[in-house]
Amino acid sequence: MTKHILLMDGPDAKGLILHVATVLFANGCNIIRQDEYVSPSGQFFMRTEFVGNDETATDKILSDLRAKVPNEAISFRINPKRKKDIVILATKEHHCLSELLIRYHFDELDANILAVVSNYDTLLPFVSKFGIPFHYISHENRTREEHEELLLQVLKSYQPELLVLAKYMRVLTPEFVSHFSDKIVNIHHSFLPAFIGANPYRQAYDRGVKIIGATAHFVNNNLDEGPIIAQDIKEVDHRYTATDMSREGKDVEKMVLTKALKLVLNDRVFIYGNRTIIL
Amino acid sequence: MTKHILLMDGPDAKGLILHVATVLFANGCNIIRQDEYVSPSGQFFMRTEFVGNDETATDKILSDLRAKVPNEAISFRINPKRKKDIVILATKEHHCLSELLIRYHFDELDANILAVVSNYDTLLPFVSKFGIPFHYISHENRTREEHEELLLQVLKSYQPELLVLAKYMRVLTPEFVSHFSDKIVNIHHSFLPAFIGANPYRQAYDRGVKIIGATAHFVNNNLDEGPIIAQDIKEVDHRYTATDMSREGKDVEKMVLTKALKLVLNDRVFIYGNRTIIL
Amino acid sequence: MTKHILLMDGPDAKGLILHVATVLFANGCNIIRQDEYVSPSGQFFMRTEFVGNDETATDKILSDLRAKVPNEAISFRINPKRKKDIVILATKEHHCLSELLIRYHFDELDANILAVVSNYDTLLPFVSKFGIPFHYISHENRTREEHEELLLQVLKSYQPELLVLAKYMRVLTPEFVSHFSDKIVNIHHSFLPAFIGANPYRQAYDRGVKIIGATAHFVNNNLDEGPIIAQDIKEVDHRYTATDMSREGKDVEKMVLTKALKLVLNDRVFIYGNRTIIL
Amino acid sequence: MTKHILLMDGPDAKGLILHVATVLFANGCNIIRQDEYVSPSGQFFMRTEFVGNDETATDKILSDLRAKVPNEAISFRINPKRKKDIVILATKEHHCLSELLIRYHFDELDANILAVVSNYDTLLPFVSKFGIPFHYISHENRTREEHEELLLQVLKSYQPELLVLAKYMRVLTPEFVSHFSDKIVNIHHSFLPAFIGANPYRQAYDRGVKIIGATAHFVNNNLDEGPIIAQDIKEVDHRYTATDMSREGKDVEKMVLTKALKLVLNDRVFIYGNRTIIL
Repeated sequence: MTKHILLMDGPDAKGLILHVATVLFANGCNIIRQDEYVSPSGQFFMRTEFVGNDETATDKILSDLRAKVPNEAISFRINPKRKKDIVILATKEHHCLSELLIRYHFDELDANILAVVSNYDTLLPFVSKFGIPFHYISHENRTREEHEELLLQVLKSYQPELLVLAKYMRVLTPEFVSHFSDKIVNIHHSFLPAFIGANPYRQAYDRGVKIIGATAHFVNNNLDEGPIIAQDIKEVDHRYTATDMSREGKDVEKMVLTKALKLVLNDRVFIYGNRTIIL
Repeated sequence: MTKHILLMDGPDAKGLILHVATVLFANGCNIIRQDEYVSPSGQFFMRTEFVGNDETATDKILSDLRAKVPNEAISFRINPKRKKDIVILATKEHHCLSELLIRYHFDELDANILAVVSNYDTLLPFVSKFGIPFHYISHENRTREEHEELLLQVLKSYQPELLVLAKYMRVLTPEFVSHFSDKIVNIHHSFLPAFIGANPYRQAYDRGVKIIGATAHFVNNNLDEGPIIAQDIKEVDHRYTATDMSREGKDVEKMVLTKALKLVLNDRVFIYGNRTIIL
Repeated sequence: MTKHILLMDGPDAKGLILHVATVLFANGCNIIRQDEYVSPSGQFFMRTEFVGNDETATDKILSDLRAKVPNEAISFRINPKRKKDIVILATKEHHCLSELLIRYHFDELDANILAVVSNYDTLLPFVSKFGIPFHYISHENRTREEHEELLLQVLKSYQPELLVLAKYMRVLTPEFVSHFSDKIVNIHHSFLPAFIGANPYRQAYDRGVKIIGATAHFVNNNLDEGPIIAQDIKEVDHRYTATDMSREGKDVEKMVLTKALKLVLNDRVFIYGNRTIIL
Repeated sequence: MTKHILLMDGPDAKGLILHVATVLFANGCNIIRQDEYVSPSGQFFMRTEFVGNDETATDKILSDLRAKVPNEAISFRINPKRKKDIVILATKEHHCLSELLIRYHFDELDANILAVVSNYDTLLPFVSKFGIPFHYISHENRTREEHEELLLQVLKSYQPELLVLAKYMRVLTPEFVSHFSDKIVNIHHSFLPAFIGANPYRQAYDRGVKIIGATAHFVNNNLDEGPIIAQDIKEVDHRYTATDMSREGKDVEKMVLTKALKLVLNDRVFIYGNRTIIL
C-alpha cells in the first residue's frame, strides 16, 4: 500500500468533497485523513491522505477528478509521500543549520539536504563532518547581482524543491526570489510584523518588550513580508540585554524553523495571498 | 439557512465519507466544515457542520444515511446549533463559577445556566445578583446518600443536558454519577494524573514541582479518572507556597474549565473509552 | 509586625546594599525579601520588603539612609503594604472591567476601586450590581478637550493613585495624560509594537499571523508607546477571522491587564525611560 | 576584574545580608547581583555575584565571613565563574546528547564534556565526529553490579563535577548514586510525578492526556524522585499515538535538560530536601 496526498484548492462549489470521495472510492483508494477549509472569501482548500494498491494510477485519479470538476480554477495535485530535496543557505550562525543537520543525520527530517551554501566559510568544518557539500560563495568584492548569479548557478545545479534560509543574513533581490517562487522558507528573529529588518533583538531591547519571538515564513519580494508559516515566543525581562535576547532567542528560532519546515515538507501548507492555510 | 452538526462514530468502513457527502448533497445541504478521525484501533469519528434550507428534514437525512450505512454499530446524530441547558455545582470558591456566570450574563456562553447548586450558602449573594436560582443544600447532618438524594431531586427538576462541577469539592458516588452518564464535567486542580485526590497543591508543593496545572474531564465512577477534555499549566518556582499555588492556580482552573465547556457545548467532544476525541 | 516596602533607584555606587542593610538593622528591622538590578547604563534599582515593630519610624529610616547616601540623584521611598485607590475607565466591552470587578468583589485585588467612568452607559447595569459608582460621560457632541475636562473633574474628585484603562477605546491627549504622569495603565490588544493603533485584530488578520497577543503598559504621550509592563500571546490559525481573534483575544487581554495591575499594586514596577524594571 | 559567586545557605538570622555586604565592601569587592530566599521553614539561601581585583583573596573573604557568622550550620562557598567538568551517559537515543554536544562544540555550554559513556555503541560514530572520548560499556552478560563497577572505574578516571544522564535508560543502584551525591542530573520524559518509571509516553497515551512533558531532576535513591530542576510541557491531542508523543516529546526533553544543566553549571541551584531553590 502506498500513501498519497491529494491537494486541492480553488473557488468553493457544492459537491467538491463528494466528487473527491466518489473518485477515490471508485479507484479503490481509502481516505486516511481529510482536512478542508473554506475561507471567508469562498476559497476552498483540501488535503486528503489516502492509500491505494500497487496499481493505483494517480494520473487516472486526477483525470477522473477533472472530469467531475471541469472548472480549471480548481487545481488538483497528488504528491507521493517522500522526502523533498532541499538546499540550505546560512551565514555564520550555526543553530538553525545544526538543528536541521542533526535531524537529517539521524533520519528525522523528510528531506534530503543536498548542500549547504554560505557567504562565509565559518560553518564549513562543521558541515563537512556530516558529508554534505558546502559551497562557500563570498559576497566580498562582488556586487549583489554578481553574488546572486553565483548562488543561482550553484543552486540550480542541485534543482532543489525548497530553499531554506537558516539565518542567511543577506537580503535577496526580487530577481533572485523569482527563481524560487513559493519555494523559499526563511526564519526571522522576531514575532513579525514587529521588528522588521536588521537587528530585531536590538529593536526589541530598545522598545522594552517582555516577549521576544521568531517567525518562519515564505519569502516574497518584500523583506520579512511573505506568508507566515509558524511563530513562537519566549518571555524575557528587564535583565535581558540585546545580546541575551539574541542568545536565548536562538532556541526559539531553531524550533520555529524546524516546525515550519516539517509542515512544508509534509505538504500541509497552502499559500493563499499573504497567508498560509495549514491542513 | 440553518446550521446543523452531524456527529457520527463507529467502526471504520470504506465509503463512510462518500455516503455522508452523497446524502447531504442529495438533500440540498452544503458542508461548511468537516473533521474526522480514525483511531489506531479502527474507530471512526466525524463531525460535519452543514447548512440547509428551511425544508431541511434532519430526520430524512438520518434515515437516508442509515439506508446507506446499515451497520447499527455506527451511530448518527444531528444537533441543531443551539444553547444547551446546564446546571452548575459549586462549593465555596467563586472563580470558576463567576467566570461562567459573567460569560453567561454577557451572552458569551452557548448555554443556559438554569441554576447553581451548592453545599454552602457562601456564593448565594453573588449568584443572586445575576438572577439565577441558587439552591443551598447543606451536606451537614446528612449521610452522603441523603445529601445526594436531595441534590438529585433538585437537579432532575431542571433536566439539564450537562452538569458542571465548578470546584464542587465533594466526591460523588457512582450511583449519583450514573444518573448523568457522560454528562458531568469537572475541573480538577492538577495536571492529571499527577496529584489525584485531595489537596493537589499541597501535594505539588511537597513534591517541589516547577509547574502546576488544571484538568477538565468528564466524571466517571473513579475519582479524577474520567476522560480528559482540556489541560493547561502554569510555571511556578520555589517561592510559591502551597497557598500561593492555590491562589495562582485558580486562573488556570477557570480558563481550562471554560475551554473544555465551550468544546462540549459546541458538540466537538466524543468520548471513546477513557479518552476524548475533539473535532 | 508591619510589612514595609523600600524602593530605591538612582546611579549605582559602591556600598548601596551595605548602607540599606546597615540602616535597617540599626532600626531593628528584618529584611524579608530583597531584589535589585543594575542596568547596563549603571542605574541601580532595589526593592526591599522588611518588617519592623510598632515603633518603626519610616521617616527616621529614610533620613538615616539619606545621611549615608547624600547623593540626591538616588531616591528612597517607603510604602506601607496597603491597597491603592484606583479608578477604572472603560467603554463598552466588559471583559477587562468584569475581571477586575470580580476580583475586587471577592477581595482578591490590592486595590480599592473607587469608581468606573465610561463614555457609554452600556456597562452601568453591570457595575451597579457591585455597588461601585459609575460615571457616564458621553463624548458625543463634545470636543475632545471638553470631554477630557469633564473626565478630569470626575477623576480628580476621587484622587486615585492609579487610572486603569480597561479597554477604554479613546485616545487621550498629552494634556490629559500629564495630569496622571506614570499613573495610567492601559491594555492594548496586540503584542506591541506590532499593530499599534486602531483595529489590531483586523491588522493581525490581514498580516496572516499565527499568534495574537496583548500588552499592558503605562501611558505616555505617544499612543501605544509607553513602558511595557506585561505581555502574553495566544496561538491562532488560518481558521480565525478577525472577529474570532477579537473574541478569543479578550481572554489574553484580561489576564495580562490583571497581571500587570497586580505588579503595579504591589510596588514591584520601576519605570526607567521607556522600559519597566520589575523586581 | 574577576567574577566570583558566593553561595550561602543555612538557618536564617538577623544581619546575614549586612554581614555579607560589609565583608565584600571591606575587601574591595563590588556586588553585581544578589538574590536571596528564605523558606517558610526559616532556611536562608543567597547567591551573590561579585567582582574584585587581582588581589581578591577568596579565602580571606570566607574567613572574614566566618568571623562575622560563627554559626557553622551556615555554609559559605565561593566559586570562580568557570566551566565545570562533566561526563554524559547515554543509551541509544541521540537528541539530548546531540543538543549538548552541539552547544559544547560551538562553545555555548559552561562545561567541558570530558567523555560520553553508553551501554550501546550506537552513538559512537556521532560522538567521534566531535573528538570526544566514547566509552562503550555493554550491560549484556553482566550483573547490574558488575556493569556499574565498570562504569564507576571509567567515570572516576575523569573526576567529573557532574554526571548528566542524557536519556540513559537504565536504573542506577543507590550504591552507584552514592558516589555522586547531588551530582547527577537526569531527564525524565514526563511531567513528574505523573508517569514515573518505564514507558511514560505509553502511560500518557493510555490515560488520554492533553499535555505531555519532561522533567530534569537530580537523582537520589528513589527512581524519578529526586529534586526537580526544570519542567516543561507540550500540548497534544487525540491524534497523537504513544509513538508520536515519544517523537515530539524529544524536543521538550532536550530543551528542559539543557535549561536545567545551564542553571546547575552557573551555580544557580541549591538543593534543599526534596526541592531546588534556584537563584
